[in-house]
Amino acid sequence: MQIAGTVAHGRAFFDLLPRPLGFIPTMGALHDGHLALVRCAREECTSVCASVFVNPMQFGANEDLAKYPRDLEGDREKLATAGVDVLFAPDAAVMYPPGYSTYVDVGDMGTTFEGAVRPTHFRGVATVVTKLLNVVRPDVLYLGQKDAQQTAVLRRVVRDLDLQVRVEVVPTVRESDGLAMSSRNAYLSAEQRADAPSLYRALNVLRDALADGATKTQAVDRAQVVLAPSAAPDYFDVVDAFTFEPKERLEPNTFVIGAVRFGSTRLLDNLYVAP
Amino acid sequence: MQIAGTVAHGRAFFDLLPRPLGFIPTMGALHDGHLALVRCAREECTSVCASVFVNPMQFGANEDLAKYPRDLEGDREKLATAGVDVLFAPDAAVMYPPGYSTYVDVGDMGTTFEGAVRPTHFRGVATVVTKLLNVVRPDVLYLGQKDAQQTAVLRRVVRDLDLQVRVEVVPTVRESDGLAMSSRNAYLSAEQRADAPSLYRALNVLRDALADGATKTQAVDRAQVVLAPSAAPDYFDVVDAFTFEPKERLEPNTFVIGAVRFGSTRLLDNLYVAP
Repeated sequence: MQIAGTVAHGRAFFDLLPRPLGFIPTMGALHDGHLALVRCAREECTSVCASVFVNPMQFGANEDLAKYPRDLEGDREKLATAGVDVLFAPDAAVMYPPGYSTYVDVGDMGTTFEGAVRPTHFRGVATVVTKLLNVVRPDVLYLGQKDAQQTAVLRRVVRDLDLQVRVEVVPTVRESDGLAMSSRNAYLSAEQRADAPSLYRALNVLRDALADGATKTQAVDRAQVVLAPSAAPDYFDVVDAFTFEPKERLEPNTFVIGAVRFGSTRLLDNLYVAP
Repeated sequence: MQIAGTVAHGRAFFDLLPRPLGFIPTMGALHDGHLALVRCAREECTSVCASVFVNPMQFGANEDLAKYPRDLEGDREKLATAGVDVLFAPDAAVMYPPGYSTYVDVGDMGTTFEGAVRPTHFRGVATVVTKLLNVVRPDVLYLGQKDAQQTAVLRRVVRDLDLQVRVEVVPTVRESDGLAMSSRNAYLSAEQRADAPSLYRALNVLRDALADGATKTQAVDRAQVVLAPSAAPDYFDVVDAFTFEPKERLEPNTFVIGAVRFGSTRLLDNLYVAP
């Protein structure tokens, strides 16, 4: 596996990699959810590039960027073993040089749900992924379904800015008890960890209730009953998979989404309703 | 010359053109200033693409998009004669399909001078040129020096978003009396047209006064004396060519800029002070 820390160094590799080239952007601290994206890219593409970059722009002023888990050595080993050809791991000064001032903004769809809690988050995500796509110029962009709103935002950016890449969303990888894999799971106490799978159970109850003809209000109520008492619900909803606009019913191509707090740790999860 | 009206149709050409590929984005109503960009691209590149797209996003609510001069047949003939290989001429529904919501914003540098008069203008320019660069994927982007702030904004977008293109700024083409060529010159009455070259003369006075050691205030005063009485000055200044931040002196790599109004027509011009 080649490793590049600058755009020029990366371009020297990306231009020569046999096509199609698959790309997996990450913030590191890799778990099996990330590696599922690599496996998918490895199966479908001739070459695979991954990036590890903890993007300061997507953290709010009140969010602890310094505390975000980092393990570049471990990530490097996992990615090499998984068959990644090039790892792009720039530092912040490479991505945001002095005088940097440009933002990519997706408008209203970045202001609801996660965007309501983290007002500049999706602007940061949209900007860094636009930059990474311009550097790597892949044929396929692999995104995890777990961050459903992020997939909708990035599909929008790719379509609106005419980025010449296909977006593929890879199903969420779960622990054996149903908990969606996430870097944030490491922040949970033993008790919170035991209660955390109740988010997934609640989403299943919500989906099944809607499928049985319950109204959204009724379905959300039933879902919250299943939630562990230590989980404070942030939101439960059904949204269009592309626009992220709320839906009253379980329609094809929607996400059933939920966010809960365990103490200061927010967990997200969703179920995709296929067309 | 091939003509493409959709992204897919354009891509079929752009992918096959021998490199390097030069690109000239325009809003049509082409004059010899535009054709100087094409000649420059033709000399330096193996292939040349131009676009004609009157971009609604860079017009303000109070600006008359419908009134903007359009002459696609004439433009087509001029570009074909000048040796353009592919003309990309999409309509607004191709560039901004239903549900479009993404903007590229360069921050503070888009809010001064022209950006102060036209608050959403540079956001519209930055967005459409990002889109066009993603569609065409040229090696060199040719921009006219006449719109100096636009060159600074687009250099910033290209650098900040890691767009893999070199930016080349081509010197302003002038009428024999010194007036910078511009689509807006067509809006001038005979009397205004006769007075219009005084903007260029004023910029020369401003530059020479600064070179002679005058303060900026003194130099701007002297420049305004040269201006025809029918011209209402909007601003005169000296700015860094990359950041567009005002400078007190004539430094290397600055623009001496001016904007004046003749009735409802605003004219811009500038002199570049080379490094």
